[in-house]
Amino acid sequence: MVRIVILGGGFAGTAAAVEVARQLAREPGVQLHLVSDENYSVFQPMLPEVVAGGIEPTHIVQPLRQLAAGVRFHCARVHAIDWERRMLTLAESDSPRHHQLGWDQLVIALGQVIDLSRIPGMAQHAMPIKTLGDAFHLRNHVLSRLEQAELESDETRRRWLLTFVTIGGGFSGIETAAEVHDLVRRALPSYPRAEATGHRMVVVHSRDVILNELDPSLGAFAQQTMVGRGVEFRLGRRSQEATPDGVRLDDSTFLSAGTVICTIGNAPHPLLTGSPLPQQGGRIVTDACLRVVGRADVWALGDAAAVPDVRRGGNCPPTAQYAVRQGKQIGRNLIAALRGEPLQPFSFGGLGQLAVVGHHCGVAQICGIKLSGFVAWVLWRSVYWAKLPSFVCKVRVGLDWLLDLVFPRDLTKFETRRSEALSESHWRAGDCLVREGERGDTFFVIQKGRVEIVRADLSAPGGERRLAEKGPGESFGETALLTDSPRNATVRALTAVDVLTFKRADFQKLVASYGVLRQQMERDLARNASASPGADAPARDAGTV
Amino acid sequence: MVRIVILGGGFAGTAAAVEVARQLAREPGVQLHLVSDENYSVFQPMLPEVVAGGIEPTHIVQPLRQLAAGVRFHCARVHAIDWERRMLTLAESDSPRHHQLGWDQLVIALGQVIDLSRIPGMAQHAMPIKTLGDAFHLRNHVLSRLEQAELESDETRRRWLLTFVTIGGGFSGIETAAEVHDLVRRALPSYPRAEATGHRMVVVHSRDVILNELDPSLGAFAQQTMVGRGVEFRLGRRSQEATPDGVRLDDSTFLSAGTVICTIGNAPHPLLTGSPLPQQGGRIVTDACLRVVGRADVWALGDAAAVPDVRRGGNCPPTAQYAVRQGKQIGRNLIAALRGEPLQPFSFGGLGQLAVVGHHCGVAQICGIKLSGFVAWVLWRSVYWAKLPSFVCKVRVGLDWLLDLVFPRDLTKFETRRSEALSESHWRAGDCLVREGERGDTFFVIQKGRVEIVRADLSAPGGERRLAEKGPGESFGETALLTDSPRNATVRALTAVDVLTFKRADFQKLVASYGVLRQQMERDLARNASASPGADAPARDAGTV
Repeated sequence: MVRIVILGGGFAGTAAAVEVARQLAREPGVQLHLVSDENYSVFQPMLPEVVAGGIEPTHIVQPLRQLAAGVRFHCARVHAIDWERRMLTLAESDSPRHHQLGWDQLVIALGQVIDLSRIPGMAQHAMPIKTLGDAFHLRNHVLSRLEQAELESDETRRRWLLTFVTIGGGFSGIETAAEVHDLVRRALPSYPRAEATGHRMVVVHSRDVILNELDPSLGAFAQQTMVGRGVEFRLGRRSQEATPDGVRLDDSTFLSAGTVICTIGNAPHPLLTGSPLPQQGGRIVTDACLRVVGRADVWALGDAAAVPDVRRGGNCPPTAQYAVRQGKQIGRNLIAALRGEPLQPFSFGGLGQLAVVGHHCGVAQICGIKLSGFVAWVLWRSVYWAKLPSFVCKVRVGLDWLLDLVFPRDLTKFETRRSEALSESHWRAGDCLVREGERGDTFFVIQKGRVEIVRADLSAPGGERRLAEKGPGESFGETALLTDSPRNATVRALTAVDVLTFKRADFQKLVASYGVLRQQMERDLARNASASPGADAPARDAGTV
Repeated sequence: MVRIVILGGGFAGTAAAVEVARQLAREPGVQLHLVSDENYSVFQPMLPEVVAGGIEPTHIVQPLRQLAAGVRFHCARVHAIDWERRMLTLAESDSPRHHQLGWDQLVIALGQVIDLSRIPGMAQHAMPIKTLGDAFHLRNHVLSRLEQAELESDETRRRWLLTFVTIGGGFSGIETAAEVHDLVRRALPSYPRAEATGHRMVVVHSRDVILNELDPSLGAFAQQTMVGRGVEFRLGRRSQEATPDGVRLDDSTFLSAGTVICTIGNAPHPLLTGSPLPQQGGRIVTDACLRVVGRADVWALGDAAAVPDVRRGGNCPPTAQYAVRQGKQIGRNLIAALRGEPLQPFSFGGLGQLAVVGHHCGVAQICGIKLSGFVAWVLWRSVYWAKLPSFVCKVRVGLDWLLDLVFPRDLTKFETRRSEALSESHWRAGDCLVREGERGDTFFVIQKGRVEIVRADLSAPGGERRLAEKGPGESFGETALLTDSPRNATVRALTAVDVLTFKRADFQKLVASYGVLRQQMERDLARNASASPGADAPARDAGTV
């Protein structure tokens, strides 16, 4: 019995699984396993339309369990890989249970992950758009911002709520920015107060032209179209820091925005970074036949692999077109290897690229021909509709598009995600984490950086008196939560600051239950109460907020 | 300018808003506000079908913002009501911002909430089915259990994963149990290992007959049909305690189940329990014209109100039929009150009731006529389809039903909810919270009850040695998380126990960042390491697990 195990349920992994399953019909004695942490494969190119509400989330997915006869599917996260013993440890989601799965031939199609940790605050405050969950969450977040803006009486905060920044001007960034911009534009008439303020969509891109995988004339056309529809661009700029208030660029301008969408930051899968497999720029090096160099039992493809491009030199680009064809080739080569037949090298030249840049408008570059505008948009829809993974998907997406012509877009803010009890945030030097007099709902633990605690005092120089300074490992914010009073002081970042935060209800629960914390809080509150209210010297302990 | 404010976006609140808006067209000088914490109204009767995947979640909602011209909608939670100053404090979701809204006429249509706190562990471990989010979450949970069962090699745990218990045999309980049972039955062929084990659906109901609002013969028919399809019943039984392992009934039997669905526990809205309004059984007492007794400026209707039933005596039942008609009546009466015209009493006799008890099978009691089987099912679909709140909903649900005939049910487990960092759980005396040798992923803080910490020791009486006992305010579970080793002891509940729990990653982050906790953990670990490993006396401090 030969066990073939495929890791990853994206374009690459599913194409490989389907091809092997097809050939396996004539090959007994082979077991085919597919492992993915979601039980579906998502059709990535239509994610931006899911954000905009033009397509229902579940209409662009293919259930992996019903992919093809003969595929044994495991819905699990790969926890560890034992390269010597050829053994995988699989972890159930939401459970500490682990399971073992051995392989004779392993196919790595894990793709890439999003890693925003290189830019301070980006992982905490920006929204990625990589998974179906991301798309769903971003949609609800945008609608939530509209609802908040409609409630808000303060014009400045309303402008902040209605400003959206997209980091990255590649395919994903441009299509997402265009769809979110359209979503807000179409929704605003239902939000009269927000509509009076108006919204902004700003795209930040590190190069001087967007969509730089395409011909520059198409990028310029796309940009011109989007500018005409009200999108702003910051080209040749990189983001350097994100906070709850917005994002700072490398020219030191700060974009104040209630929503930051981040479409950059692809990184290798963490399981592979520490592996003994040969790597190049975070991708696993294979030969032209897609087998990992130096291993007879491991194959790799898709975004996770550096596959030599036999037609044009260098490596194959990390696109769906290549991933799907590599998947088929790996399927054929696996079977050939099992039969002792010669392997075939992977050879493909690419067909072209398409992008939607707004309502009824696209750009395309196919087999050397450049198209733009309505024709390119129709082509986009035709090509991607034809590529949808199943007949069910085609019918459902077709109906979604049809209904979208007839009915107004749905504005349902349907969020099932509870705000997290414990989260992290990043602030710039000078930012106020807590403002005196405001209602408090957060407890803070400093992870990195320093803050000062100050209180308004007209008799003091600068109109405020410094009460304390705090650094890593210290905490603040408990007084307002435990005594249910407004903030009694302002907390300002002296340096860039990273904090862990707890919301009111969770913090109260934790303090009420956990002896160690309760005693600490009681000590802090008592010390603060006994401190002379007029004391001038900044005492290190006095700063309970 | 007269400000009419309606609280609540269910059947009652939306019916009232639409009626007032319709009449307002001829009444200048009136402002109509509608407040709800979701920006949509959900068509409750079809929630069980959303769980089963027959209908998409967003197809049974009506966006409140587009409800009717002239309605000013506020997506906010009511934080406080000042009955003297006639002022509401509204809270944005996911933000500490508060806003004020005053009223001249206030309409309370807040419905009821689910309160499971009377049964220990029920709120922590059972899944309610009241909101769209509940339905979405329950669906994904059921599919997640199937995926886990398919991975699981242990037959006992697989049986546990595949056992579903529904608490409550009313309309909601029976329809949800029937739909979940069908969902699992239709999905199992895609899960060969789980299918070999088989699944169980058990309904627990406190009376001797289910659907007791209907004629007993219909309840008996429904029960017989469901038993024929494999559903089990525990009638005349109440649930007394829920734990992560299942639910205990009042005959002391314990139903070991991976999923407990709870459809009981309706309770008054917490905003109203402390209000000065006259109340009866948690519902606000109104006169026959729907005005709250003793107030000229407050009205109440729907599940939140005790409205005299002028036709049959007593109070109107808390059903959608009554809520919608009360909404219309309140609309007319509000306008009459503004014009100084006489109010009309609410008078309605009810039309009948319908329930689906499984695939193509229902029961109905309409205008005194009893129906069951396929005819009742067709009637259910016709009646509720006709009652869907908009033409868009009708088209979408109609298409869902059509596609459901043609295509297999979708098994996509599309969960966007992150497991919570801080959660609570309840255990029975004798349960093991932690088992020696297992991989640990949880840190525990005891809220209520006592546990003992024991270690296997063949030389000791009973095969184990007692290391420590812990109680409220104390914690355990840190060693395995901080040292990444298997659990070094077993923790067993001596009494019923409530604990706060942290998952590994969050706990590690908190300890790494928060000085107070880090020092405590370092003290505990050091003390444990220095304790003589052969010590016999149960030391209170030695129990770090």
